[in-house]
Order: sequence, then structure tokens, then C-alpha cells
Amino acid sequence: MWMETKTEEKEASGTRSSLRRCVLSGLLLCTGDMEHLDKYMQEKLFVLQLVVWGLRGVTRVILANNPLSGALILAALYWASPWQALLGTLGVLASTLTAVLMGQDSAEVSGGLHGFNGMLVSLLMGGFSSAGDWYWWLLLPACLGSATCVFLSSGLSPVFERWDLPVGVFPFNIIIVLYLLCTGPDNPYYPHHPATPPGLLEPNGTELIAVEVMLGIPLGVGQIFACGALGPSLLILGAVLLYSPLLAAHALLGSAVGTLVGLSMAVHHDLLYSGLAGFNGALGCMTVGGLYFTFSWRTHLFAIASAFLSAYADVALGNLLGTVGLPACSWAATLTATLMLLLTGSLAAYRIPIGRVMAPEHNLCSRSQWEAGDTADRESTDV
Amino acid sequence: MWMETKTEEKEASGTRSSLRRCVLSGLLLCTGDMEHLDKYMQEKLFVLQLVVWGLRGVTRVILANNPLSGALILAALYWASPWQALLGTLGVLASTLTAVLMGQDSAEVSGGLHGFNGMLVSLLMGGFSSAGDWYWWLLLPACLGSATCVFLSSGLSPVFERWDLPVGVFPFNIIIVLYLLCTGPDNPYYPHHPATPPGLLEPNGTELIAVEVMLGIPLGVGQIFACGALGPSLLILGAVLLYSPLLAAHALLGSAVGTLVGLSMAVHHDLLYSGLAGFNGALGCMTVGGLYFTFSWRTHLFAIASAFLSAYADVALGNLLGTVGLPACSWAATLTATLMLLLTGSLAAYRIPIGRVMAPEHNLCSRSQWEAGDTADRESTDV
Amino acid sequence: MWMETKTEEKEASGTRSSLRRCVLSGLLLCTGDMEHLDKYMQEKLFVLQLVVWGLRGVTRVILANNPLSGALILAALYWASPWQALLGTLGVLASTLTAVLMGQDSAEVSGGLHGFNGMLVSLLMGGFSSAGDWYWWLLLPACLGSATCVFLSSGLSPVFERWDLPVGVFPFNIIIVLYLLCTGPDNPYYPHHPATPPGLLEPNGTELIAVEVMLGIPLGVGQIFACGALGPSLLILGAVLLYSPLLAAHALLGSAVGTLVGLSMAVHHDLLYSGLAGFNGALGCMTVGGLYFTFSWRTHLFAIASAFLSAYADVALGNLLGTVGLPACSWAATLTATLMLLLTGSLAAYRIPIGRVMAPEHNLCSRSQWEAGDTADRESTDV
Repeated sequence: MWMETKTEEKEASGTRSSLRRCVLSGLLLCTGDMEHLDKYMQEKLFVLQLVVWGLRGVTRVILANNPLSGALILAALYWASPWQALLGTLGVLASTLTAVLMGQDSAEVSGGLHGFNGMLVSLLMGGFSSAGDWYWWLLLPACLGSATCVFLSSGLSPVFERWDLPVGVFPFNIIIVLYLLCTGPDNPYYPHHPATPPGLLEPNGTELIAVEVMLGIPLGVGQIFACGALGPSLLILGAVLLYSPLLAAHALLGSAVGTLVGLSMAVHHDLLYSGLAGFNGALGCMTVGGLYFTFSWRTHLFAIASAFLSAYADVALGNLLGTVGLPACSWAATLTATLMLLLTGSLAAYRIPIGRVMAPEHNLCSRSQWEAGDTADRESTDV
Repeated sequence: MWMETKTEEKEASGTRSSLRRCVLSGLLLCTGDMEHLDKYMQEKLFVLQLVVWGLRGVTRVILANNPLSGALILAALYWASPWQALLGTLGVLASTLTAVLMGQDSAEVSGGLHGFNGMLVSLLMGGFSSAGDWYWWLLLPACLGSATCVFLSSGLSPVFERWDLPVGVFPFNIIIVLYLLCTGPDNPYYPHHPATPPGLLEPNGTELIAVEVMLGIPLGVGQIFACGALGPSLLILGAVLLYSPLLAAHALLGSAVGTLVGLSMAVHHDLLYSGLAGFNGALGCMTVGGLYFTFSWRTHLFAIASAFLSAYADVALGNLLGTVGLPACSWAATLTATLMLLLTGSLAAYRIPIGRVMAPEHNLCSRSQWEAGDTADRESTDV
Repeated sequence: MWMETKTEEKEASGTRSSLRRCVLSGLLLCTGDMEHLDKYMQEKLFVLQLVVWGLRGVTRVILANNPLSGALILAALYWASPWQALLGTLGVLASTLTAVLMGQDSAEVSGGLHGFNGMLVSLLMGGFSSAGDWYWWLLLPACLGSATCVFLSSGLSPVFERWDLPVGVFPFNIIIVLYLLCTGPDNPYYPHHPATPPGLLEPNGTELIAVEVMLGIPLGVGQIFACGALGPSLLILGAVLLYSPLLAAHALLGSAVGTLVGLSMAVHHDLLYSGLAGFNGALGCMTVGGLYFTFSWRTHLFAIASAFLSAYADVALGNLLGTVGLPACSWAATLTATLMLLLTGSLAAYRIPIGRVMAPEHNLCSRSQWEAGDTADRESTDV
């Protein structure tokens, strides 16, 4: 409904100022959310549609929404580890198909909102497994776990909707923790590596290598997909750049903040080198910086605060969950992002309603439009 | 108010199709929810009323609501262990009386909704106590714990009502965990057996006995009341059968699913033999299969999914809480049931509003009635 | 708006009965909430205003709201430990200033509602630090932690508002737990003392000293500010007495209940002597007894029940969090108070809406006024 209003609005308000502003949105057609693709895909084969939904789902993990970026990310994952990438592909398909079978809202399914949790669950099951690559039995829990994510997304959404919050990666975080708890390190069928708390002390005399720490910053972006190799991580960063340069900048900034926090808390060096110290910061920074809030210098400051909060909370949760051998996953970033979205005061004025969130650049130029649209709607209702 | 509407509705719509349908509901008078008893009891002594409320409370534990079933279950519990049954009786009375004193809604009290949590708390306090049977000092925490359940039920209900959810056994689960944490295994006054995580490995060479595993399935139904003997468990199953054959079938099915899950996760053999692996599955299956959702082949599939989810979550939570010596109680089934009730999509269409939930068979034939009633109400309001 | 209505109401209803009742509220001008000060301060310097907001924030910790009491409490803290008091002062200023910068509601800021969480975080960071007094680097996390409390207060309030609940000390409890998890006992920069579970057994032959247990009761009031010395604790109690004698009586009563609970659960003797066993009971008792509920014999009984619940929950949570070396802080009292505010039934009738909570004595005489005001408002709206 809003989409139509927007198009009409575009035709109606042909003034120059809005024209100049919308040149930017015109450029975004090849990048950004690629909405035009949805219309084009409507008459195509189901399999083709499923591919696009899946690719959108792949990018949703890193808060983007662009099938081309999804293809790039998938290529990066296959480059890094074909087995994990296979698991991820399977996960995104399994959860998207489950959502179709369970009669979930079709707009959500086609937007990839039911794919990304399943993908992450499958990816991480592969990542934590200590049974080695190509352990085919793992496909069973990967499929079941991905399918279960749809139950959680669907069940949590009525609760989160009350405060206009996205469900985000809560389902992934819950399912992966339950899976790891279920199996445990010594399970005869599905053993996995126990996680170590980040606060574990280094053996004496270990010195920090500055270059490796610097390299950890782009790796932090890759770690959002549990990918610890530099090349694929840079490709993932490129995919985000294709979707939105603003989002990519915040991803790098957040990862840098996370690394800084890791240094200030003296976490285990491996976490700094592998980028695991940075990825929660990156996610926390991206959420606030441009995605769910209109970009401005104020939201930028809040984005940095959010990155710091996410990174510190990640160290804290890592220490807590590490005592029972569990990883902190992206709990810290997810909780911090939810908190930020709930904030009252000056940040709330920049908040974009969940249903209207698009690429940061698009949000910038569309905000004035839908605000005008709202006023028009209200006036027409009043008359 | 709805009760009156329904009776009027019955008198008004005298068509044959509804008659045929309501023959079934006529048969249910001696089984099902036994609503006619409530009218009969209204002029009786308070003590008699309290007995009926208590017996309804006893059946609420296993999601039924029938005083006759309650009497059967109580008999089964006294058969299994007189001391634990005494504690349970005391618990149901203590919490029902507390609810009366605290001025809780009288319809809830007379429906037994304030008795079942107290009963479970008392039963389990007896079950976990390592001080042996007839340790009379245990009556003190049993009474206090049962009374506290009313506080939790009453306090949680405004939160849960927002999403039309039942409070269920959340109060029991919270209070028993707090009690066990308070006392600890070495408490001088109230020592208890610490729980072991289900993932604990068996000593080498232990073989699984298939017959015992099969026997664990009916025991899983009994374990809902912390009862591990076969005879009483079958009597409890009979009591559920009296209330609703559909519910009893789902209880057995869910317990079987739970046992299957236990096998797939290689849990400790004792859990399979004693039925502890099955009872969360049974509860999860019963909630969805016919009780809170109109029965159909689709809800039946979701009920099986719910049983699987409950059972896997139970293994996971058992492993987590077992690290600090706590049992997982029925947390898994309670959380899964809550999730299922929140689900959007195709399952939500079968959802029965909490205020209208009755025996599954009754739900089947009453759904069309209250839907018609709603339309009639709306029409009369419009005019 | 309501304030104006109240004044008008006062002028209008000049009958004797209300006069007699309001003599009490006249006396409360020098004690109670000191609302008249707010008007007087409006034209003053920002620094002076900040001092008053900070002093109100100091008293909010102990559920009071009076700048004079705040000054007394601050004096008590500087008497007990200048270093900790300095940290506390810094914390209250840091969080109040952050709230101003973040554009939080000015009525909340001037009421001290954004200061008390920050103060507690800073105080407790000093209390748990094992780096000794005057370790200046601690000022950094103290300021950052205090500032973060504003994020949490602001973010949690939309969720809590749905049920008209106060956010209370949830932000403090979350931040201090995260801080302690982040640093851990062996952190090279910020080491701290790990907490021991209260259920830890005493060495054999240790006898309980009755006088020390009795002294623990007033110390329980001081422990709300992490102050374990008798003189300052009595001064703090005096400060509460200045605000409201009813609140001070409930603080002592609750602390006594907490000590009783500690004895019944055989907690470590040190907890009884230091007052740590009593402070959760005190907080739980104060919330219900007169503050959020109009005082009556019925609320008094519920206040005692609340104190028992808080104290038992504190022992339970202490044992749980103690397994990972964390303190239970005031989680128990905060959760219990939230539960009590949610209760339906006879207690709910005495509930005062959050926006109208003042000193208990004022609540007693103002309740009839605003109830009359509400009726008047409704009548004028109807006309």
C-alpha cells in the first residue's frame, strides 16, 4: 500500500528540490534494495523466485537486502570453505521453504526475512563441529535447526511487534545455543569444540602483533558469516559496499571499535587476530548508523556508542557463557541493537518504522517523502 | 456471559446439523470439563466447593479439567507414594486457599487455575528431598512455596494476557528452581539430590534394554506428576482418557517422541527408562494437539513438531541447568507451548482464545458455535 | 497538569475534613518530596539545579526523593569511605549529565530518575574492586558505566510502561553484572573480588553471635548503598526518616525479615553480620509498604510477604550467580517489587499509578484528592 502511495507521491510532487533528492534514489536502483527485481520476478518460476529470496536472506545476515550482494557473499563463503558454504546454502533454503509451508507472510518470505536465521544456524553448526568437514550426518541437524528458526521468528514477532522491533537474529542465537547445549563436546554423534571465555589469560611473554590486530578489523566483518579468511572477508565487505557504502563504512568502524574494546579488556590475542572481537561491534554499529535510523552526525555518534556497548557486552557474555563452554554468538549485538531501537529521547526522533527500513542512502531521501505521505494520508482521512 | 449466550444459542439454532454435532457434546457431559457440576456446587458448603476446586487443580497439571479425573490421579499418586501425595494434596489446598484470601478472580479459583502450580511445587519438593519420606519439616516450605505460586500466577498474568497466553506452569518452574537454589544439596535443614545433566556419558559396555525403553513411554505420562511407577502412571493416563481421549493419545504420542529424541541425543539410559525423557514431549504435544488449537491434521502435525521441540529443548536445558545441579523441570515444554501459541501463519487460524479453551472434543464442536455467536453478537451490537 | 488540578482542588474544597487531612501534607513541606523546591530552583544556575537533581538521585536509590536526605546520605557515605563516596558522586553526575545530553524527559531528569542507577554502578565498582582505594583508573569505567545506565533506563522504559511499571534499579543490576563479567577476578587493569555463594557452609564449630546479628539489621539499610559501617548506616536511616517515617519503619522491618530468612536458610554468618542478608528484604518491604501502594493493614501484610520473597529469592540468586563468582546485587528485590506491582486481586486496588507516587504519608492523603480529581476531569470531559 505504501509502495503505491510512494509512486503516486513521486508523480505528484514534481518540484525541483524533490527531483534533485531523488536522483540519488535513481542511482540506487542498481544497488540498494533492488525492489524493481521483485516486480520482475513475480511471473517467474518458483525455483527462480526461491533463489532470489534465498540470496536476499543471505544478505539479511549482514543487515543488507540485495540479491547481487547475496551472490557475492555466497561466492566468498564457497571460497573460504565449500563445506560450510554448502551447509549455509542448505540452511537458507530449508528455512525459507519451511516458512512457505507454514504459511508465513509472503512479503516477509520474499524479502528473505525467513532465510537468514536458518543460514546462520547451519553455518555455525558446521563451524563448531569437531567431526571435520564433509561429515554428512550434520545435514540432518542443519536442516532441522534451520526449520526451527521459522518457528522462533514467527513466534517472537507478535511480542516484538508491540514495540515495533525486528526479531533480528534472536532465533539464530537461541537455536545455536540450544543445539550446542543439546550435543555437548562429547556427544557420540555430533561432537563440537567448546568455546573458551575471552577473559582467559595469555601465557606469559606473549606479545601482541600490531599488524595482525589491524588485519582483524576487516576479518571482523567476515566473522559475521563465521568466515575467518582475509580474501573472502574483503569480498563480503565489497558486497556490503554494493548494497550501501554507508553501511560498509559503519561495519568497518564498528569492527575497529570492537578491536579497541578487546584491547582495553585484554582479551585473548586469538580473538583479536581472528576478528571475533570485532564482529559484534560491527553489527551494533551498522544497526544504528543509517539502517534503522536516518543518518546524521547524531545517529553517527550513537552508532559508535552502540558499537562500544555491543563489544563490551560481548566480552561480558563471552565470559559468562564460556564457563559452560558456550560461545556468545551475536547475543551482545542483538540485545544492544534492540535496546537502541527502544531508546527514547533525541535518538528516537531519527527512528525509521520497521516497515519502511531500506538501504541507508534510500532512508535518507525517502524519509521526507513518507513523512509528507503520512501527512497527506492523514488529511485525506480527516476529509 | 458467554455461557449464557451459548445456552441461548443452543435453544435458538435448532437445526439438524447442529443437533447431530451436539450429540457428541451431550456425551461429553459425564467426561470433558463437567461444567454442569459448577452450577450444582454453587449452593454447597465451602469445604465441598474447595474439594472440587482442588480436584480440578490436580487435573490442570496435565492440562485436563475434570474433578473425576482429579480423584483418579490423586488415587494414583497415593498408590505410588503416600508421602508425596500428601504433600501434593497440601500444596493444592494451600495455593487455592491463598488465592481465595488474596481476592483472586473467583472463576479462576473455581476452575482450579490457582491450584496446580502449588501442587507441583509441593510434589517436587518431596521428590527432590534427600531427607527421606515423612520428614515433617518439609510441610513448611511446601505450604509457603505453594502459596507463593499464587503471587507469581497473579503477577505474570497481566504480562501474558497482552498476547492472550496462559501463565501455565511458569510459576511452578520458577518457584521450584528458586527453592532448589535456596537450599542446595548440603543445606542442614532441607538437603536435596542434585540433578545430573542428561548428556552425561554412560560407563562403557552399558547396553540399552529395548523393553525398558518402551515401558518408559507410559511412564513419561506419569512423570508429569513426578511419578515413576508403571501402575499409577497407567491410572493417570486413564484419568486423562476419561477427560478426553484425544488428549490421552497426544500424551502417549508426545512421550514416544520424547523417548525418540532421548535416543537420538544419546541421553543417560536412566532418563529413558524412568520416563523423564518423555514427559516434556508429552506436555508439548498435548498443548498443541487439540487443547489450545482446534484439532485437525494440520494441528496434529504441529503437535508432533511441538513434541520434538520440547524434547530437544529439554535435553539442552537439562545440560545447562545440570552444570549447577538444577533439574530442567518442565521449562522446555512450557516455553515451547508458549512459542506455539504465539505462532503466526497457518497454525494461528486454529487458535482458540484462552477464555474458550475446553476439552479437545468440545473445542471441535463448540468452535462453530462461538464463531456463530460472535457474528450474532456483532450484528446485535451493530443494530 | 495534575499538579495544577491539585492546587485548584485544594482551593476549591475548603471543607473541614479535607483541611484536617491536609495539615499533615502541610507538615510534609519540609520533609517528603519537597516539590516547592523545584519551582524555586527553576530560575537558578544550571550547576545549582544539577546539584539538586543529583541529591534527589542519591535518595532515589533508597526509594526516597528529597534533596536534604540526599545531602545526609552523601555525608554518611563520605564518612564511611571517601573514595567510594567520590565514585558515587561522580556516577550520579555522569549519568545525570548524560541524560541531559541525550535529550531525556526533563521532568525525569530533574526528579533524579536518571541519577541513581549511575550512582549505584559507580559505588559498587569501587566496592568490588580489589585494586584498593584511590585507584584513579577506576574513574574511567565508573563514568562510562554510569553513562550507560541512561541508555538502559531509557530503553527499558517503553517496555515497562506498558504495564505502568518503574524501571527501578534494573539498569544498575544489568550494568554491574556486565562489568564484573567483563573484567573478571584476574583482569590486569580492573581486578575485583569474586562473590561467594551465601549457601557456602561454615567451618565446624563456628557459633552465631546474637548481638552481631541484631546489629546487622540497621546495617542492612546501609548496605543499600554498599555501606557496611554502623554510624553511616544509622545516618542513612535518619535521612530516610526525614523523607518519610513510614518508609524508614518498613526499611528496618524488611531488613529484620531478611536477617530472619538468612537464619532460616543457614547462610554464611558474615552475610548476617554485615547486613548483606537484609538489604534485599528492606528494599522489597519499602516498595510495597506505602510507596507504590496506599498504606493500610493489608498493604502492610503484603509488604512483609514481599520482604520474605525478596530475601528468599536473594539467597537463591546468590547461590546461582555465586557459582560464576557474581554477586546477586539487588536483583531479588527488583524482580519481587516488579512482581508485586503486577499483582491482580486485592492488592491492585491500593496501587498508585507510577506518575503519582510520592512520599507514603503524602500518598495517604493525596489519594482521595486525585481520585476526586479524576472524577471531576471525567465529568468535565463528558460535558
